[in-house]
Amino acid sequence: MESILAPRALRPAQHAHPDVSEAISLDSGYGFPGVFPDLIEAAHRALTTYRSESLQYGKPFGLAPLRDWISAYITEDGVRLNPDEILIVNGAKNGIDLLCRLFTQDGDAIVVTAPTYFTSIPIFQSFGLEFVEVRQDAEGMDVEALAGQLADRARRGLPQPKFIYDVPDFHNPTGITMSRQRREALLALASSRKIAIVEDSPYRRLRFEGNAEPPLKALDGDGVVFTVGTFSKLLAPGLRVGWIGAPRPMLERLARLKSDGGTCPLTQRIIFEFCKAGNLDAHLERARSAYSAHRDAMMAALRRALPEVEFVPPSGGYYLWVKFPPNVDTGLLAERAAAGGVSVIAGRAFFAGKAAYADGRDEPSRYVRIAYSRANPEEIEEGIGRLTAAYRSMR
Amino acid sequence: MESILAPRALRPAQHAHPDVSEAISLDSGYGFPGVFPDLIEAAHRALTTYRSESLQYGKPFGLAPLRDWISAYITEDGVRLNPDEILIVNGAKNGIDLLCRLFTQDGDAIVVTAPTYFTSIPIFQSFGLEFVEVRQDAEGMDVEALAGQLADRARRGLPQPKFIYDVPDFHNPTGITMSRQRREALLALASSRKIAIVEDSPYRRLRFEGNAEPPLKALDGDGVVFTVGTFSKLLAPGLRVGWIGAPRPMLERLARLKSDGGTCPLTQRIIFEFCKAGNLDAHLERARSAYSAHRDAMMAALRRALPEVEFVPPSGGYYLWVKFPPNVDTGLLAERAAAGGVSVIAGRAFFAGKAAYADGRDEPSRYVRIAYSRANPEEIEEGIGRLTAAYRSMR
Repeated sequence: MESILAPRALRPAQHAHPDVSEAISLDSGYGFPGVFPDLIEAAHRALTTYRSESLQYGKPFGLAPLRDWISAYITEDGVRLNPDEILIVNGAKNGIDLLCRLFTQDGDAIVVTAPTYFTSIPIFQSFGLEFVEVRQDAEGMDVEALAGQLADRARRGLPQPKFIYDVPDFHNPTGITMSRQRREALLALASSRKIAIVEDSPYRRLRFEGNAEPPLKALDGDGVVFTVGTFSKLLAPGLRVGWIGAPRPMLERLARLKSDGGTCPLTQRIIFEFCKAGNLDAHLERARSAYSAHRDAMMAALRRALPEVEFVPPSGGYYLWVKFPPNVDTGLLAERAAAGGVSVIAGRAFFAGKAAYADGRDEPSRYVRIAYSRANPEEIEEGIGRLTAAYRSMR
Repeated sequence: MESILAPRALRPAQHAHPDVSEAISLDSGYGFPGVFPDLIEAAHRALTTYRSESLQYGKPFGLAPLRDWISAYITEDGVRLNPDEILIVNGAKNGIDLLCRLFTQDGDAIVVTAPTYFTSIPIFQSFGLEFVEVRQDAEGMDVEALAGQLADRARRGLPQPKFIYDVPDFHNPTGITMSRQRREALLALASSRKIAIVEDSPYRRLRFEGNAEPPLKALDGDGVVFTVGTFSKLLAPGLRVGWIGAPRPMLERLARLKSDGGTCPLTQRIIFEFCKAGNLDAHLERARSAYSAHRDAMMAALRRALPEVEFVPPSGGYYLWVKFPPNVDTGLLAERAAAGGVSVIAGRAFFAGKAAYADGRDEPSRYVRIAYSRANPEEIEEGIGRLTAAYRSMR
């Protein structure tokens, strides 16, 4: 039936979440079921000892002991936020959505890397935001380039972007971790311009080797950083619990914008009981071991089957950002691969605006993001084989 | 520390969720812990048999078997929606929020009753909406008055409201159930004007006596009704799972606006396992019995202690809407009551705009909403005693 109603115009590119198919999934950032935690005991406690609390409406800021735990947990990384400076949200995406509500209005600009986390793009677009795209190199976001872009906007009388969004640890999709020097330069720039930074760091604790850099929030002397965390990658994506860490007055505004009746107290209690019992470290050790093996399997399969592609081996996270030879259309490649039984995501999905195409070379179309997170090593081997067959069929 | 950042201006009246205090709580629509369901077995199944699914990202529309179940469940009420026409959301409030995103832009108008559900007011305000307030009588929303108001707006060149929001069954706060005739008149008006209706009906199955009227959605021949349901009142508020029922093309738009990474698949599975096992009917029977006894205890206590107040005995739901004698300021009464150890909500909180004050009589300030849901009969007795003492201290 044709509707007689007129909803608001849809923003461009409000894409649907990719479907889980029977194909080998090397596309979305799904967790590996083999390392999902055993939450049976934690759930039992939540539904017995804490039954009245778990099944009642929760507090808008979230479960107090979980906020205490998060505060202590991020202190290990040098982030000094007390529990009052932690707001529980429905996963990191809900956090990003709330930060858009806090800072932006239709037509405002924000800064994103090119490429950037592709699921954040439709969220930003749904708020009518424009993009200032800044390039990345091996050290992460090119802060000098960004400074030039901001100065140029100011000269042209354009309003300043409302925030800078980045994934500084094991960037999605590139896997790059921002260097210490870049972090300091980014903070100095944001502070001097009084622009907020949204630090989205789901993969930080999934480091397979090498040393971590301090979180942006740990270096934030001026309170410009809003750190967004999530249990999706620490424990399991199905829990839909994350947090925002920020100065209290800003959190109070965010809590008032959180119109969901509070994040589920049952899942918060399950997570807290699991972590309180000291299970997280062993769980993360298992996860790092599994994802590291998945990464190695994928890199080996790619080097064997597709020696013409390039990628920088990531030291953590879920993804390889793979560059194909010139003139390969990875949009077409992803389609053929899907038809051949393996799903990957073509590079264009990770570019929010048009900047990457400005020089006419269409670099994005040479890339594919391949997730090694969900599939096991045998499936990865088979999946890369199917991708290779799709690629060879195009040459 | 004073922030150097400038968030968007706060909308008026973005109030915080009321805190749960040690006082006797007759304020918010909390559930009675004594009838919270036993979800232990359902959670165990969700975390064993369905572990890989429960802990993975879910589908944007929600868990398929739960949507099948909801579709069948609402058919019992005459609502014919197939599972494709059900979108799972994070509780009814998240549903209302999404419908605002679907239909409205800053400055648009919507229709609400005066009084209306007070938690929806700040959600609407956060979208910058204006209110067309329509009065209620014993049959529910005064549709003839609304028709006049809409015609008047049209004559004055004002844009049409984007949707009509109502709680037709056991209205919050008044407890009124809209008559069949009014339902038909409202649908005819909405269809002729092509205005959507948002039917928010959390209390429908908590009917203690008498016969139900058909849901608005069951009478909706033109696809103008968006029905919002929730497990908060069917099972427990802590679950944060609800749904929107609407024509598929509209749901597809709504799903794209749902930027939370999908509603928690674990809690969806727990709910489905509980319901599939046939536990819901017995649970609801217990809930109706408990809430009915709470209502009776509260009405008896009020009649005994405060014979000067007036209320219409509700046949279901959670609330009494109590009218005090002229010139009582219930804002002050609620403050004194809180100081005396019982929380109630003063009537003004339930009026979205200024219409109720237009005649200068300030009727809203004579009302108090008293929830009998959370407290047990002994606490209700004690709470009404404390309220009475606060009231007597003002005379």
